[in-house]
Parts: sequence; structure tokens; C-alpha cells
Amino acid sequence: MTEITNPGEKKMVLVSGRAHPELAEQIATELGNEVLPTSAYTFANGETYVRFEHSVRGADAFVIQSHPAPINEWLMEQLIMIDSLKRASARSITVVSPFYPYARQDKKHKGREPISARLISDLYKTAGADRLMSVDLHTAQIQGFFDGPVDHLMAIPLLAQHVKESVEDVSNVTVVSPDTGRVRVAEQWADLLGGAPLAFVHKTRDINVPNKAVSKTVVGDIKGRTCVLIDDMIDTGGTISGAVQVLKDHGAKDVIIAATHPVFSGPAVERLSNSGAREVIVTNTLPVPEEHQFENLTVLSIAPLIARAIKEVFDEGSVTSLFNGRSN
Amino acid sequence: MTEITNPGEKKMVLVSGRAHPELAEQIATELGNEVLPTSAYTFANGETYVRFEHSVRGADAFVIQSHPAPINEWLMEQLIMIDSLKRASARSITVVSPFYPYARQDKKHKGREPISARLISDLYKTAGADRLMSVDLHTAQIQGFFDGPVDHLMAIPLLAQHVKESVEDVSNVTVVSPDTGRVRVAEQWADLLGGAPLAFVHKTRDINVPNKAVSKTVVGDIKGRTCVLIDDMIDTGGTISGAVQVLKDHGAKDVIIAATHPVFSGPAVERLSNSGAREVIVTNTLPVPEEHQFENLTVLSIAPLIARAIKEVFDEGSVTSLFNGRSN
Amino acid sequence: MTEITNPGEKKMVLVSGRAHPELAEQIATELGNEVLPTSAYTFANGETYVRFEHSVRGADAFVIQSHPAPINEWLMEQLIMIDSLKRASARSITVVSPFYPYARQDKKHKGREPISARLISDLYKTAGADRLMSVDLHTAQIQGFFDGPVDHLMAIPLLAQHVKESVEDVSNVTVVSPDTGRVRVAEQWADLLGGAPLAFVHKTRDINVPNKAVSKTVVGDIKGRTCVLIDDMIDTGGTISGAVQVLKDHGAKDVIIAATHPVFSGPAVERLSNSGAREVIVTNTLPVPEEHQFENLTVLSIAPLIARAIKEVFDEGSVTSLFNGRSN
Amino acid sequence: MTEITNPGEKKMVLVSGRAHPELAEQIATELGNEVLPTSAYTFANGETYVRFEHSVRGADAFVIQSHPAPINEWLMEQLIMIDSLKRASARSITVVSPFYPYARQDKKHKGREPISARLISDLYKTAGADRLMSVDLHTAQIQGFFDGPVDHLMAIPLLAQHVKESVEDVSNVTVVSPDTGRVRVAEQWADLLGGAPLAFVHKTRDINVPNKAVSKTVVGDIKGRTCVLIDDMIDTGGTISGAVQVLKDHGAKDVIIAATHPVFSGPAVERLSNSGAREVIVTNTLPVPEEHQFENLTVLSIAPLIARAIKEVFDEGSVTSLFNGRSN
Amino acid sequence: MTEITNPGEKKMVLVSGRAHPELAEQIATELGNEVLPTSAYTFANGETYVRFEHSVRGADAFVIQSHPAPINEWLMEQLIMIDSLKRASARSITVVSPFYPYARQDKKHKGREPISARLISDLYKTAGADRLMSVDLHTAQIQGFFDGPVDHLMAIPLLAQHVKESVEDVSNVTVVSPDTGRVRVAEQWADLLGGAPLAFVHKTRDINVPNKAVSKTVVGDIKGRTCVLIDDMIDTGGTISGAVQVLKDHGAKDVIIAATHPVFSGPAVERLSNSGAREVIVTNTLPVPEEHQFENLTVLSIAPLIARAIKEVFDEGSVTSLFNGRSN
Amino acid sequence: MTEITNPGEKKMVLVSGRAHPELAEQIATELGNEVLPTSAYTFANGETYVRFEHSVRGADAFVIQSHPAPINEWLMEQLIMIDSLKRASARSITVVSPFYPYARQDKKHKGREPISARLISDLYKTAGADRLMSVDLHTAQIQGFFDGPVDHLMAIPLLAQHVKESVEDVSNVTVVSPDTGRVRVAEQWADLLGGAPLAFVHKTRDINVPNKAVSKTVVGDIKGRTCVLIDDMIDTGGTISGAVQVLKDHGAKDVIIAATHPVFSGPAVERLSNSGAREVIVTNTLPVPEEHQFENLTVLSIAPLIARAIKEVFDEGSVTSLFNGRSN
Repeated sequence: MTEITNPGEKKMVLVSGRAHPELAEQIATELGNEVLPTSAYTFANGETYVRFEHSVRGADAFVIQSHPAPINEWLMEQLIMIDSLKRASARSITVVSPFYPYARQDKKHKGREPISARLISDLYKTAGADRLMSVDLHTAQIQGFFDGPVDHLMAIPLLAQHVKESVEDVSNVTVVSPDTGRVRVAEQWADLLGGAPLAFVHKTRDINVPNKAVSKTVVGDIKGRTCVLIDDMIDTGGTISGAVQVLKDHGAKDVIIAATHPVFSGPAVERLSNSGAREVIVTNTLPVPEEHQFENLTVLSIAPLIARAIKEVFDEGSVTSLFNGRSN
Repeated sequence: MTEITNPGEKKMVLVSGRAHPELAEQIATELGNEVLPTSAYTFANGETYVRFEHSVRGADAFVIQSHPAPINEWLMEQLIMIDSLKRASARSITVVSPFYPYARQDKKHKGREPISARLISDLYKTAGADRLMSVDLHTAQIQGFFDGPVDHLMAIPLLAQHVKESVEDVSNVTVVSPDTGRVRVAEQWADLLGGAPLAFVHKTRDINVPNKAVSKTVVGDIKGRTCVLIDDMIDTGGTISGAVQVLKDHGAKDVIIAATHPVFSGPAVERLSNSGAREVIVTNTLPVPEEHQFENLTVLSIAPLIARAIKEVFDEGSVTSLFNGRSN
Repeated sequence: MTEITNPGEKKMVLVSGRAHPELAEQIATELGNEVLPTSAYTFANGETYVRFEHSVRGADAFVIQSHPAPINEWLMEQLIMIDSLKRASARSITVVSPFYPYARQDKKHKGREPISARLISDLYKTAGADRLMSVDLHTAQIQGFFDGPVDHLMAIPLLAQHVKESVEDVSNVTVVSPDTGRVRVAEQWADLLGGAPLAFVHKTRDINVPNKAVSKTVVGDIKGRTCVLIDDMIDTGGTISGAVQVLKDHGAKDVIIAATHPVFSGPAVERLSNSGAREVIVTNTLPVPEEHQFENLTVLSIAPLIARAIKEVFDEGSVTSLFNGRSN
Repeated sequence: MTEITNPGEKKMVLVSGRAHPELAEQIATELGNEVLPTSAYTFANGETYVRFEHSVRGADAFVIQSHPAPINEWLMEQLIMIDSLKRASARSITVVSPFYPYARQDKKHKGREPISARLISDLYKTAGADRLMSVDLHTAQIQGFFDGPVDHLMAIPLLAQHVKESVEDVSNVTVVSPDTGRVRVAEQWADLLGGAPLAFVHKTRDINVPNKAVSKTVVGDIKGRTCVLIDDMIDTGGTISGAVQVLKDHGAKDVIIAATHPVFSGPAVERLSNSGAREVIVTNTLPVPEEHQFENLTVLSIAPLIARAIKEVFDEGSVTSLFNGRSN
Repeated sequence: MTEITNPGEKKMVLVSGRAHPELAEQIATELGNEVLPTSAYTFANGETYVRFEHSVRGADAFVIQSHPAPINEWLMEQLIMIDSLKRASARSITVVSPFYPYARQDKKHKGREPISARLISDLYKTAGADRLMSVDLHTAQIQGFFDGPVDHLMAIPLLAQHVKESVEDVSNVTVVSPDTGRVRVAEQWADLLGGAPLAFVHKTRDINVPNKAVSKTVVGDIKGRTCVLIDDMIDTGGTISGAVQVLKDHGAKDVIIAATHPVFSGPAVERLSNSGAREVIVTNTLPVPEEHQFENLTVLSIAPLIARAIKEVFDEGSVTSLFNGRSN
Repeated sequence: MTEITNPGEKKMVLVSGRAHPELAEQIATELGNEVLPTSAYTFANGETYVRFEHSVRGADAFVIQSHPAPINEWLMEQLIMIDSLKRASARSITVVSPFYPYARQDKKHKGREPISARLISDLYKTAGADRLMSVDLHTAQIQGFFDGPVDHLMAIPLLAQHVKESVEDVSNVTVVSPDTGRVRVAEQWADLLGGAPLAFVHKTRDINVPNKAVSKTVVGDIKGRTCVLIDDMIDTGGTISGAVQVLKDHGAKDVIIAATHPVFSGPAVERLSNSGAREVIVTNTLPVPEEHQFENLTVLSIAPLIARAIKEVFDEGSVTSLFNGRSN
């Protein structure tokens, strides 16, 4: 009998929410593509509306959204975009959330708390997402929250390369975790910097004096050394700028702060610029508006990394190859 | 062998989001219960945190949230509350959303749009909701969006009762739909008002003059009559206050506006208070803050109705019996 | 290492149930394709058997079925066909149900009723359907019942075009809804006819005489005008032929009935042919057997529209483009 | 804080489709209960409507339906009843289908066939069923098709007891399977009859003469013996009445037919009454209308067995105990 | 706007567990492909680790695993491989389990038993499998346990062909089932051997002597004939070698054993080699290590059949065509 | 109408796999209950069989299984037990896995790895588990892998209490993490020990000499101090016994090892007994057979903690209350 066929060519579509359009534009430019024209606005009562201007039927769609405050707005917008793509017959839908929302609520710290980071993965899935791409997850276990492929990109090599170039003597660097929870990540940094020693800042109580106020100490050798104080994100900047002070108090020569995600809430900018750190290095996984920029702040673009990952996904190559086989 | 048993008593728990705590309090008071103490706040970067102060294990939980602007905030808060209840082993979780969010995006008006009202039902389900309770859904079909029992409460009888009491001569009333989409609901009103005649306001174009600006007309007899202009919600108030004018222009004696949901966005309050309507009647499914109150505005409490429905659900009685067997 | 590859060409397969094979044949002809040979029969005890004669592995299958009485037979046959395609490794399965079954049970009118229209969507999904295509859904919200892409085709433009051609003076036309629930759709018709005025038929009670029998009235201006009485379907024809009478009684010049779905149950044909309507226009979304044909009945073929939509779906073009970007 | 509690009593609700209301009545009587009053009818276009007259909120509902022809009607009615119970907040829903629909399509006999028996289980689940109860499944593996508890009741002991009582000399009985597929079940019968010998009827071809017409033979010793010819169902009766003839031709003294499900399609009654069998024993899992009754037909009521099983399920006892720990 | 596209070529990837690597190698050779290099080992505490050495993104992956003892090890390894493929973005995942694990637990024989064969299908699905391929399922209904396409390959024709070639006079062959449960399969064999007669072995009790020990008898004519004793699998070999003895005792000329799956547990090899059977014919769906080989054992390779089926699946041809349209 | 009701009492059932029956017995004894008699054995070909001896219908079942080697056996046994409970109509099923299987594969360390810890949660869910209980998860994020309530019990307070009692001077204790990944947990220990200082062991490379062999160092002050070397589990004991040596080399006064889970694979017992540690403290979440016991090994029973948690779950009290509101 006669048969109707079609060569089955695939096409890539990039769509972007309204949280950080510059990043989407940069990614598109890296790819030699354009962001799909989209109508998106907020109704008077706060409801979000989205409509794509061209057909997405059969396309591999990448839904780029950043998650600064008001984070719930941008999250709902992204979910609505996914629903819209699903109902418009996109062939596959990849969520691109460079800063994973609610990543810190990745477990119950106390009874009767939510695990919002898992909830977010489930909401993405329910809306219609097939795959997830993110950068430097707060904990790598979040990969396991999503029921499908997760491309976990690493910005640390990018940040570390910059540190290497701006520090005069790498052999005098100590990598410092601002608390006990990031020592493993500090070790990854240490490897990338050629085997630097480690330290961490730590809250202590006087064991003999109940209710004695907590003070902070440093565990590890930092005297006279250049400290690279690392974290995955800087939110209000309290912990990290406090750590700079502790390091200086304990004899550090100077301090460089490096973190992937510039959340920069409330007093963060003021604290960081007054912290005494010689340089603050971040990426643009979140937008850094002009009023948040300050002297000594370096913002590296994450767009080339994301663009390469999208290309590998679309061409069915290997994202892992971007990181020498290492995932996280 | 020995056997450990337990009488299997059920307990009711009421929890409330932060959008409209007064409503939850009123419902609890009606029930002779209390709202469960809850820690809820917003982090600096906009993430929402929720924790319940007492055990909810094994309880039938009712998650009361209202959805004024910023609607996405309140929606995410409610989803996180549901997740929290699920992980804390609540026996059943009933969403109580008197004003269903995104109800107007209940179909694709154009290609490549979302159907956000369906998405909302799926998000509730994914977070862990077993059952949904809402008041005067924008379209009754939304009941079918949720995969589980929906208790669809009707405020129209409440509003109609108030109208009957405040109008001097019910036989001189015409029920008016502000557009072509609410004529069926106007008919329900007409029945509740003893068989009042119907009319609707309608946009027209001059068929002989292309591009002639649209004007509005009234279909139905309203001359010299008291018009009850009805709708499910009042958002910016543009359509409804425009309709008041059209009715007056076509000879209406006076106009009463009645709607269940006081969204009252942007210019709504100004438009309504200047519309020339003799009275505006709403319920408190959404909060009406003091600055939104105005002369001629009547706010009826929906709390007794919701409380009775919760009681029936908890006691496994009949919600339908509240409305003489009629659902919608 | 060596690698085995395959160019990944797509192929289209059309399969048809036994309810209305002519429609499937017309669609296939429009597409230059053939309906896949299929064994289908009913066992002595009423069980349905289906088997496809050729491989469907990897194909994009379209399962065309119409839903006249006995509707449950045709529905089960369609579900069994979908199961068969799923187990035979079809790449995608699109349900093509021009008349959506149980569309009128799209909400609970009373407590303890089903929402069968939602159930149907879930049954399709469970059997293995990926996508749904239908024509002029009873309510557009049914799109939201299916968890996946829905292509909602509109026959109204086709019907309206025919009306325009057969009416001598379009400026003398009034579009009439047979009850309060179709006024919005009447407005769509009015737009397609260049801005025609609207009216609707409406049941009234004498407010002063309790238990007074209900009579029908017309709201809107129809005197001396050609009324286009519209509906989505004609079932037993009672409402619509009653409306013709009411319109005539209220001075209409003449009446044309236009509806997408010719359900034509029981006394419908007799009522319609005796109704006094000048013409009855329908499509063939349901079969109109010879014994249901009558003078003044016009049946327009829906096949070209469905064929074009299938082509767009298969070629990953835009179905929306068939309707100038408008969905419903 | 104050707490609202409820003793959490359970209640049983029996609902019945229209296929075989007598069976539901018998079951209810056995239980000392009543069938819930229900409105159910078929619309002119074949759509089914169902509504329960009393609240089922919180109840353990048992949905009794039989599946004679037109089987698809009764199946859809049952699915709609389940949907209705789910949306009306029944606590649990147990499908009671004494004759499991489409049980014979339990595997693909050829490529591109459906597995309708699995599909049926999935449709029940999707509609909202929690549990399934059935009698003498065509193959016991169907238990594994349903994702949840299945109570598989056995009528064979009931039938065997009747045979024992009506046969003068059990030691002269041979149990005969009408084809190769029921020999295992014949063995179960043999055990219940105290260790009777087995035989089966079998199609043969002359191996030396290609295309030689098929004839039937008996494997096993039946000469001069009373043959109990068993099957799970009698559909058109062709195989089983043919087997009677073969047995007689091979010297059987007399033949008793015993089968659980009296499908009795088309010529079944004529064939059976003319088959020469001394007695035909069935149960009433399917209705046996008066016109299907004939001399020598014995119909045993399955109602007591189903009633006891429902009681055990409701009281959380053991259904297995009804069969001495043996399932099938 | 610019558009990025990709021709959408498909690629095949074969991966193998550690249970029976030779079979996977044979299949790959038949296909002209290679098994994907994979790191797989067992940690000291028994946990299994798997990692694929090359990208599988976008590939159609076939996960070949055999299931000898320790069967739970190989099953978990296969599930972990599937998870790994899913998270590494394989386009489709086909489980290739020539001997379906837990196939004999395909129903509840008693109350409170699992249906492990269904559970296995659900575990495969949950891990990420899209499709299942297996050989000679213990019961064909297992096809219905998996929610997706199942390619059920038949080795019986392969075995039957070998029997035909090694028996001097096919017209003197009787096909024998070792118990009452395999008579239907014996009939399939009989057809493949040109219409051979059937018999089965059967446990009997002396009906007049309660508690008399069970003995075995043969139903059917085998005196002086070559018996082909068939089964789907040989586990400990007790039943089958006992059957050889019974057949010999009842006058069989000689006996050939033929079974698809050489489970060969415990005393099987000794029993079979001492059973008196002239030849034992199996396939290599399970590994037959050197110490399990014995004189008169013939092992036929199943690899060509599986390779052809994989090729048809990958090229979207017809697996059914391999068996003349017949499934099972 | 008449109504059949039932008081709805709940009953608790404890079932246990074969991996560590003593633990289940201890838990039952603590609860004043008994473990349900169960038939469980392994067939010759390695398949697992399970059947419960008494009805579990309507019961709240707790499925206690420990996961030593061969871990896949015990995991499959547990899954089969869950399936069996589900099909036997247990009201709820709680998995009690004190040592969560595959907890270390909680993220992709490299591309194309599985996330087996998530897979395990999904397998439990698919088999029918409603809830999960475990002790000291390798990472707390695993709570988020399970789609349902997780009761995460903490053995650290139990271990810490024992340390406090056996150390002469708590103020001379330093808590040491054996690598960078457990520093956060060390901090929890430090808090429980009244604010002890922290240290960690860390691999270093000589930055100036590429390929220089890795050596280990200690970060933090341990000279002359009693080191409590903590971990969640001890597998082969290599890391932890190496750490003892490093601590001694760097001047520790003495070393106590404390870990929740005694995996004790391969050379673990020898390494630990020769490590120079003064005491090794573990719990019995995994069995410690006699041959694994050695001088200086202390095994604390986890049974009282699990029993109390089961009691709280069954009585719908608060598990969190066992840990002063703190989860992890």
C-alpha cells in the first residue's frame, strides 16, 4: 500500500522566561540561534500569561529561566511555559534552571517540614518536563530528585581557572569552606588548584560555660596565606563576610570569595563590598543588576557552558565529556 | 497470637496560608476548632518556608489558602504546605481554595497557550492533595480538571438571598450578564430570584462599515427595571462598570452588582465606586483590605458555608445536601 | 567501535474503527494515503476483536473513530485499537474523535454524578493515546481534561461559510442560541458573519403564579429577520425544533439551523424535517445514514479539515495556522 | 488546643449496574443489606447516565456488575459508576465482576492484537477502583493484570459438590477437558471428586495426508464411564456440545457438563439441550433469562459465595479462608 | 528566524549484564555490532556498580541479561543498568531477558502470596524500561503484565526442527506433557511435528484408599513410540526425569526431552544424564557452564533469533513476521 | 435504609525478612507484639518465595528487613514481601530498612552512572510501600528520594551517650571526620558532646611534584586528645582504620571509633581489631555475627528506638518528638 513518510529531522527551540533574558540571549548567541519570540505578561491580579509566537510542534525545547527573587513568580512562569510547550506538542522539554530553586530545602531539618527541592522536581515533571539541566546544585543528591535525565553542569572549573589567573602564587593558597557543610566541595577546589590545603570556619561554644555565646574559629592552617573562600551561593552574605573577618583575624594574608550563584539578597552587596575580601567572583546564573555591581566584583558568564551542554544534548553527544567524564 | 490494635479515631486539622488568615480563623470559629499553629515566612531570596508546630500524623488536614495578588506566592506556599503535610503523614489532605487560581485560563483561546487551570489541579495533586474544595468556579468544568473528589460550593444562593432582601420589588428585577459568557449563570440567578427575566450586554460592530469601532448594546428588556448585574469575579472592574453605564444609557432604573470573588485589581475600587451602581455585593473568598472598602460595598462572609462543608467532609456526610442535591 | 544506525524516517498510519468507515476513507483520500487493513468484529457475547494486518511498529498512528449510537461499542473498540497499537510499538498514537463522546457530562450537575467526559480522556490515556484531535467540543474546557496535546478543530467557519453563501442578505441575519448556554458560541458565529446581532431562546416562569407552567421566550431582536439557529450538536432535536417554533411565533422571517454534530437520535429527523426550518446544515463528524437524510438537510464533509490537521501534526507544522492562530 | 475528632466507623455500600440486578439483590439479601438506590439510564444517543441517590462519602463501596451481551454497555456503565463513586468520596471501591470481561483476550495470539483483559484491569484502575473481585477467571494469571488486591473466588467446589450429589457412583466418573487448555483445571476437579481419572478431547490431523480434514479424538479412558465435561464458560456451546458427541462416540456412558459462566450466546441453548448431555450445571455469574432455561439445566446461585467474600473484605477477615487457604 | 536542526538519525546500543556475556557477544556478532564496554562489579558489601564507557544519549538501548542463579543479583544488576541508561538519556530502553525471572510465580496459588512475575514487570518499568523481549514465557499471559510492547519470541520451532532432524520416523512420535499444565504447549509441538498424537503424565490417587500414596500414570497412547517430552524449562529435573521413567514403564520406545530454558539447578544434571532419555535438547537462554554439559545434551543457540528480533525492532519492521504472524 | 457498619479498628502487623530475624524479634518484644509467622525460602534456581501464615487484610504492616551481603537477595525478598502484603489487602505498608541499601550511590559521581539510592526508593514504592523508616541515612537528602513520608531515625544520640559514659574527660575529646564529606556530621556529634572541637583527615598531594603519591594529613587540633572518629557506616574499614593510624601519628592520645552501621565487609574485622582504636561502637542495624565480634567492639541495640518509632507511627503520634523536634 502507499505510505506517507517524513525524514524525521529534529529542530531546537530556545524559550526564555522573563527573569534573566540576557542570559538566554547570550546562550542563543553562543549557539547561533535565537530565543523564540514569546508573549509573557502578568495580569492585574498577579496571574502569569505566556504564549509562544511560532509553532513548537515536534521541537526539542529548552526552557531557560533564572530564579532570583521573586522566585515563586519565575518558577510559576516556567511551569506555565512547560505546560504550554507540552500542549503545543513539543517533542521534548528540557528545563534549564542554572540556579535550582529551593535547593537548600533538600531534606527535613526538623519534623513537619517540606522537602521543597524534591517538590520542585515533581512540579517540573508534572508540568511536562522530560529532562533537567542545572549548574552547581547545592547538594549533588538533588540530581536524584528528578525522575529523568539531569545534566549537572559544573561552574567550579570556570571559577577556579579565573582564581588561578588572578593569584600570583598558587602554592600559597588555602581553600576555605565557610562552614562544616562545604568541606567536600572545598576539596574539589583544592584539586583544581593543584592540591591546595584546606581549612574551614566553625562555630564553637565554651563547653564549660553553658549558654556562653557562640564564637567562630578556623580549623586548618591559614596564617599568611591567600584564602579562597568558596561556596555554592551567596545569599545575604552574612556567613561569608563573617568568615572573611574570622580569616583576617586569624592571620590570613588576603581573601578571595568565589561562589557560583550570586543570590545577593538584602544587605549582601554592602556586606561583600565592605568585607575586606580582595575579590568576589561569581557567575551570572542569576542576574546581577547594575545596582548590585561593586568594585572587586567579577561576574563570569555561564552562557558558553550552558550553550555547549545544550548542543551536546540536542546532537546526542556527551555532556559528561565537557567535564572529563566527571559528574557530581 | 497477641495483637496490637488501636480504635482508629479520626481527627481534623485546619491549616492556613498567610494570604487571608482572617478567613481561616472565621472557619475555625464556626467549627469550634483552631487553626494549627504554623511557622511560615519568606526568605530574603523569596523562597517560602513552612513548618507545622504540632503533629499532623493521621489527621484529615484542610489546607485553607486564599489567592489574591501576588497569587503565585500564595499558590507556592500552599503547595509547600501540602508537601509538608504529606511527608508528615497526614491521613488525607483537602485543598480549600475558595477562589480557584488561574480559573480563567481554562482552555486554549489561541494556539500555544497553556491551560493553567488544569496545571494548577495537577500541581495540587502532585504535591499530595487528595481532594479539592472551592467556591463558584469560573467554569464548572474545572471540577473535571482535578483527579479526585471536588466539593464545589455555591455562593450564589447567599448573594441572591441578600439581593432579595435589599430590593424593594423583586418582580421588577432583570438579571444581566455583563457579556455573552455568563448568560447561563444569569439564568441560575433568575431562578433563585423567582423567575426574573434575563438580559446581556454585548459588543457590536457596524456590519456595513469595516473597522468601525466596537460599541456595546444590551440584548433583553431592562428599561425602567432594577438590573442585577452578575459575575463570578470582579477583577479590574472594567467590564462590569462599563456594563453599568450601558444599562443606565439604555434606561435601567438602577443597577446592583453581585459577584462572588472580589479580586479588585488596580483601578477596580475606583471604577466600582464611581460606576453608578447602587450596591456592590461580594463575599470574602478573597480578602478585602480596608483600603478597598467603599460605600455601597457589601461583603458577605463565606466562612459559614465552607465550615459546614468541611464538617460534612470530615463526618462523611453529604456536601450536596447543603445545596438541595444540586451541584454545578 | 562499530555503530549500527538508521536514518529515523517517520511514517504515518491511519486506522479506523467500524462506526463510520466512509469518513476515514475520505480523510485517507485527502491525504493520498490508505486506511490500514484491519480485522475487526464482534464476538457472539459482544466482545470486540481487533487486529491490524500490517506492522505499525514505529509509526505515527491516527485512530479515527466516530461515536454515534451504540456509542459504548465504538468507544470500547477505539480503546482496544489503541491498546493494540501500543503493544505493537507504534511510535505515537493520536485519537481522532470528531464528536467527543460524553461531552455533555463535563461537570457534575448534581452531587454523586460522574464527570464522564473527563473519564473518557483518562481512558484514552490509559489505553495508550498520546494526543487527541476533536471537532467543536461541547465545551472548550474539555481540552483540559486530556493530559497531553489536544488539537481542537473548528467546523464553525466551514458552516458559516455555507450560511453566507446560501443567505441572500447577510445584513438581515440574527444569530440565535437555542438556550442560555450557547450565547458565547453564537457570538463567535456573529463575528464570522460580519457582526450579526444576537438573540437567545429562554424558558420563563410567571413569577407571580407559582407552579405556572414554563413557557419559552426570545431575548433579542428577531422580527422579520433570518435567524441562524446554532448549536454544537443536534441530538433528539427537541430543543432546536422547539426554538424554531418560538422564533417563528415571535416573527422571524425564516430560520436556518446549523450544528456541527448530527447525532440525530430517535425523533430528531422527523422533528427537524417538520420544524419549519428552511435548511438544516451539519457536518459528517457522525455518520448520516440514508434513512436520516431529508430534504433541506445539507451535510458538509469534515474530512478535508481533519486531513489537513493530521498532515500538520505529522509534518510538525502548525494546526493553529488552520484557524488564523485562534484556538477555542 | 481543642481537637475535633470522629470515631472513624466504616460503612458498607452495595451498588449495582443494570446488567443483572437479581444477583445484586441476592447478594444484598445474604448480607442483610440493601442495594443503594441508583438512577441509571441510557440516553437516546447511547450514552449512559448514573447517579446515586444517597451519600457514599467515606463508604466502602462494592460495584456489582455482570457482563453478558452487550458487554461493552455494561462495562462502560460500571466504569462510569466507579468514576461517580470516586468523585463522591467513597473511601474504597471494589469492583465485583463475577465474569471477568474479555478474559479470553489475555495474551496476544498473533502479532498486533490487543491484550484486552489487561486493558480492562487498567480501565477499572483508572476509573478509580482499588480492588477487584471475580469468580473462576479464565486464566488465573489475570489476577496479575490488576494493580491491587484481587479476590479470586472459586465456584468449582460449589459445582463439584452438586455433581457429587447427583452422580450415583463417583468412582465411575472421569473428568474431561474439552480441549488441551483446560487439563490443569480438570485436575482440580478430579481432586475435588476424590481422585477421578482425567481425559481430554483433542483435534487431530492425519499426519500422512496433508490437508486432511481435522477430526476429534479423546485422550484418556472414558469407555463406560460417566464423563464430567468441565469448562470455565459456555459461550456458543460449539466446542462443548461437540465434545459430548465425541465422548459418546468413544463409548462414554453418559455426560454431565459443568461450567461456571453461562454466556450462552447465539445457538448455545439449542446446542446444549440437544447435545445429549444428561445435565448442564452452571452458576448465575451471568443472568440466565427464562428463554435460555431448558430441561436438564441447573443454575446454582453464586450469591452466597460473593456475599461471604464481601463480608470478609469489609470486616478485614480472610477471603482465603473460604477456600481452605487455597487461591488460584 | 534561524533554525538549528539535526537529521535525527537513530543508533543502536547493546549492553550486557554479567550473567551470560557469551550470549550477548553472540547476539552482537549476529548483528555486526559490539557490546558496549561497561564497568560492572560487586562491592564488598554486595552492592552492584555499573557504568557505561561511552555515551548512550539518544540511543535505542537493548539491555541483555540472563537470569540463572543467583537470580536476584542479575535482576538487580539489570535494573541498575536500566536506571543508568535512563539517566544517561537513552532514547528507548528494551529489556532483553530470554528467561523471564520469577515466571512461575505468575498467580497466587494460595492466599497471601506475591505475584512476583507481575512485580518484575513493574520493577522493569519503574527503572525505565520501555519495551520487553523474552523467549517462551512460562505462561503467555505474562505479556500482559508489562505495561508496554512485549516481543515474545518462540524457540519451540527451533527445538522442533532439531527433533525432526534427529528422529528417524516422525510418524512414530508422541508429544508428551510432563504434567497437566503443559498440554496446550504439547499441542503446539504436535502441530510443528506434523500432527503428532498427544499424551500427558499425571499424578493419581487410589480413590478407594484414603491417604494411599500418589502414583503417576500416563494418559494417552505411547506404547512403542518415540516420546518427545516437552517443557518450557528444566529446573531441578525431578518432574521431567520422573516422567521419563513413567513413560519407559508404560512401554515407550525411547524418550527425547526438549525444553527452552536450561535452569539446571541442584541435581538436575545428574538426574537428566541418568534419566534414560536418549537426548536432552535445550537452548542457551541461560548459560550452560562446562560442568553442566553431559553426553546427549544438545544446546542450540538462541542468539540468531534474538538478533533478528532486535534488528526488526530497531528498523521498525515486524517481529511477528519471524513467526508467520503468530504470537503466543 | 439498613446500613452495615464496622467500628474501623486498626491493627499492627510486624513482618520480617530473613536477613536479621533477631532484630525483628527484639523490636517485637519491645512492642509486646510478635513477628507474623511467615514461610520464606529460596528455590533451587535462586528465586525467593514468601507467604504470610495469617491474614493481613486491613492491617498496618511494618516490613522489617536488614541489608547485609548478599544485599540484592534481601532487597528482592523485601520487595516480594511488600507485593504480597499489597495483594493481601494490607491497609498500609511501612518499609523498615535500618541500613538503607545503596545509600552511597546517591548521585552520579561520573556520567552514565545510576542513582541507585533513588532507584531503591522507586522500587519500594512500585512494590506497594506507603512509607519508609530508616536510621542515619548516608545523606539526609535520601529522604527526598521517596515519594511519601519518611521517618528518619537518629542513632547518633544513642552512640554519643555511650561515648560520654565511657570517656573519662569529655572536655579532652575532639570529634574527627575520616574524610571531608562527614565534617557536618562531626559537628552534630560535637554538639551532642557539649561543644567538642572538630578535625578531619584529608588526602594531600605535593603540589610541586606531579604524580607524587598521595599522603594523609589531619586538619584540626588533636594532639594529646581523645579522638572520637565518626562515620555513618564501616564497610571494609580501610578508610577508618587508616584514619586511626594518621591520628596516632599526629599525636592523638587515643581513638574511639563510632559508626551506626556495621557493614563489616571483607577485611573489616581484622583491620578494626588491629587498628589501635580503644573501642569500636556500632549498632545492630545490620547483623554482627559471632565471627565478626572482637574485643573492644560494642554493639548497641537499635531495637528500642525503632520500636518506639513504630509505636508512634501506628498510634499517629509524633516520631519527631523522639528527637526533640529535630529531623535530619
